[in-house]
Amino acid sequence: MSSSPYQSLEQEFRRHHALAGAASILHWDAAVSMPRGSAVVRGEQLAAIDAECHAILTAPRISNLLDRADASAGGLDDWQLANLREMRRIWRRANALPKRLVAAIAVARTACESAWERARAESDFRTLQPSLERLVGLVVEKSRRLGERLQLEPFAALVEEFDPDRSVAETNAIFAELTERLPGLVDAVIERQAAEPDPPPLPAVPIARQRELATDLMGRLGFSFDCGRLDESAHPMTSGTAGDVRVTTRYDERDLVRGLMAVLHETGHALYVLGLPEPWRTQPVGQDRGMTVHEAQALLMEMALGRSRHFCQFLGRLLAERLAPDPAWQGPGLLAHMTRVRRSLIRVDADELTYPLHIVLRHELEQQLLDGSLAVRDLPEAWNEGMRSRLGIAPANDRQGCLQDVHWPSGAFGYFCTYGLGAMVAAQLQQALYLAHPELPAAIEAGDFADLHGWLRENIHGWGAYYSTTDLLERATRRELAAGPYLDHLERRYLTG
Amino acid sequence: MSSSPYQSLEQEFRRHHALAGAASILHWDAAVSMPRGSAVVRGEQLAAIDAECHAILTAPRISNLLDRADASAGGLDDWQLANLREMRRIWRRANALPKRLVAAIAVARTACESAWERARAESDFRTLQPSLERLVGLVVEKSRRLGERLQLEPFAALVEEFDPDRSVAETNAIFAELTERLPGLVDAVIERQAAEPDPPPLPAVPIARQRELATDLMGRLGFSFDCGRLDESAHPMTSGTAGDVRVTTRYDERDLVRGLMAVLHETGHALYVLGLPEPWRTQPVGQDRGMTVHEAQALLMEMALGRSRHFCQFLGRLLAERLAPDPAWQGPGLLAHMTRVRRSLIRVDADELTYPLHIVLRHELEQQLLDGSLAVRDLPEAWNEGMRSRLGIAPANDRQGCLQDVHWPSGAFGYFCTYGLGAMVAAQLQQALYLAHPELPAAIEAGDFADLHGWLRENIHGWGAYYSTTDLLERATRRELAAGPYLDHLERRYLTG
Repeated sequence: MSSSPYQSLEQEFRRHHALAGAASILHWDAAVSMPRGSAVVRGEQLAAIDAECHAILTAPRISNLLDRADASAGGLDDWQLANLREMRRIWRRANALPKRLVAAIAVARTACESAWERARAESDFRTLQPSLERLVGLVVEKSRRLGERLQLEPFAALVEEFDPDRSVAETNAIFAELTERLPGLVDAVIERQAAEPDPPPLPAVPIARQRELATDLMGRLGFSFDCGRLDESAHPMTSGTAGDVRVTTRYDERDLVRGLMAVLHETGHALYVLGLPEPWRTQPVGQDRGMTVHEAQALLMEMALGRSRHFCQFLGRLLAERLAPDPAWQGPGLLAHMTRVRRSLIRVDADELTYPLHIVLRHELEQQLLDGSLAVRDLPEAWNEGMRSRLGIAPANDRQGCLQDVHWPSGAFGYFCTYGLGAMVAAQLQQALYLAHPELPAAIEAGDFADLHGWLRENIHGWGAYYSTTDLLERATRRELAAGPYLDHLERRYLTG
Repeated sequence: MSSSPYQSLEQEFRRHHALAGAASILHWDAAVSMPRGSAVVRGEQLAAIDAECHAILTAPRISNLLDRADASAGGLDDWQLANLREMRRIWRRANALPKRLVAAIAVARTACESAWERARAESDFRTLQPSLERLVGLVVEKSRRLGERLQLEPFAALVEEFDPDRSVAETNAIFAELTERLPGLVDAVIERQAAEPDPPPLPAVPIARQRELATDLMGRLGFSFDCGRLDESAHPMTSGTAGDVRVTTRYDERDLVRGLMAVLHETGHALYVLGLPEPWRTQPVGQDRGMTVHEAQALLMEMALGRSRHFCQFLGRLLAERLAPDPAWQGPGLLAHMTRVRRSLIRVDADELTYPLHIVLRHELEQQLLDGSLAVRDLPEAWNEGMRSRLGIAPANDRQGCLQDVHWPSGAFGYFCTYGLGAMVAAQLQQALYLAHPELPAAIEAGDFADLHGWLRENIHGWGAYYSTTDLLERATRRELAAGPYLDHLERRYLTG
């Protein structure tokens, strides 16, 4: 039986998916299980799998099949057409850059990441500067070539990898509104909170109990331990594939809340992966719709839900049942812990209100680095100045400043905006969700998350990459992406609520 | 810089090794970490990697490179020549069978393994019979084709996969000697042990303590936790690759000794992998010398060492230090536990003395199944009769009889002999080791295994697949493989010692 060009493409992408899934489990293993002396061996294994994945996408056969499938697209249904569109998108990116440039970037990244480790240990940006200059030069070339191929502005061509269907002008407009309105909001909230009494301090909770609580919470939120696991690693993350999702977190005996919030965040990611459309699991159209939508799932759980009054009531009751009695387990005290706003230096420790300002700064600086208006050597100064003007504080050293994130040294330019936009999307989803389910606050307070999970499956998870981000969001929330719902939500929660 | 045909082959086999290593970690994950609902996803990942491995070995490019490398072999050193020989061996097997047959066997295996699960649960061979008949038919065809290609008798061509350089006539002669001498020895030892008092019963030991003891023992024997791990799975096993060895075992609170012996066994396998010649790690010549030598490493630790008086003295002291005091931790009592001989039905639970009789039975039956002198439907009867004549007992049902091992349903014919020959090799290695290090018994009693490990590295592990099995063994022990040293060892330990 001979297969159609489209069917042959499905076969090729199925292989690609299986190999990429294998690589994802091996990355998880490297973070969770691998002995520390095995990094070189693992590097060889991952490089071999990556090379096979790349070979599938760049074989002349695929290009030929895509052309023939396009020519006979009349016989395909809507899902198949969307799948073909996503195949073409992946193919275009994989074939846009000359091998020489891909290899040069890989070498520069490795050098830059290891220079970054040293620079951070020494808290001295000068240790990173030469290799970051080399890498930025190569990324500029990459963005220019990708832009030509994808008919996008160079920076937009980088963003497209993480968030397809996103205009940089739109992002900049949203971020401009945040820059305009957030600092005043931060001032007002900090002033208000200063007048309130401190909540009772959190007692230490043994890690074994935290682990039980995390597992319990994940299960209640809808995570299936039949198709996934929870483990520990240095940085919380979600990896694996739709049928085998691997979540990690970290615990601190003295900070139960931080560990649980990391679990909520990763559970948001994991539920998205577990809810992707099952029949399309191995195909491009069955994957997530990019990092903005992914991050929105995580922030919806961690921020919108996790720091709500209803959830804190539920969580407080759960903790009081499970742990030694303590005044800290009262809902209002927990809520005060989770919504405490502070001007701080480190992005990953920032609160819901100040977090987007950290993102906006990075988003601006990376554009300036790539368009040449900011020289790499001037980055620390621009960073510190940006922190002062946005948050009113500045780091005392590079480690707490421009050396805190691995994204740039690892070559991920154009990624940061997805964190900020994810927060906007989360707020819009939350609004639509509460409109569709007015009884949700009471359900959450009772520990019942079925409608929350069901709505997300029906409106987001189950669609995979079938719609563009714009269409997906407009169908789910009946409006375009904007900063308004997010800012309204913050005002309600932190000022008027 | 253009590379020579030989250098290009090294590149191709390096890729092959990296992909096979990735697959091995994924198999380990499936046994240790994988959620139970993820088997289908994992199957797709492993199939994709297997297909890439097979594609590397069957590409016309490799055949061409091998011919050109052979033609210019004059410029290669001894290790490169041995590597080229091993490459050819692997290539020949991978290309010997038509695709159709390989695919048919894969399908028949899967069906047969699942029929075996059901048959075992029902303890009814008839449930397995039809799919085993189909599989045996295909394996007969495989052995015939392989035999033609490798210029070996059909059954020898199957054995060659697991133990290259092994003549079936030689194996049969050794096994005939075992059949001749072992039953009498078993009778005598059982009679002698019946006259001795029972050793004190083993107390229960919490699994957490057993885990600590196992880790401690592995470390003392030379296992590096920098390049490997110890975990738990349903069946003890060793997987991974030279730089990342994954050992598993299982624990039973009421049977400390069984768990520790499994750890010794797997540590023997693991030390072999960790000791393979480092510069050749990614190449065929840097791999182990087949399953007989591998099994010998395991049995040397578990049987020859682990059930010796010196080791029991050491272990008893260790247990007395670490666990609640108990009379069972006295060396002689431990030794009595470990050397207790019983006529039993299940191979994996058999003692050092009766174990080879289980192997000889399987080795004879599988040859008869393949040459047609035994019909699949008559297997249970032949099995039971073989048990009676060799061990004087017969199973009451198929589950305790011919359904106990997965090897045949999974298509592994010609494998069992490596277990038996491994025991012979282990005895010969032990003899040579004690000749080279007469002070070893005292060192072992003191918990010092450095000379044991050093001798194995120098004489076996560090040579990888450089020598043939015959040469490797003759260089290490100054004699050909024979049953004599093994039978002498058993007489010394169980009768005259």
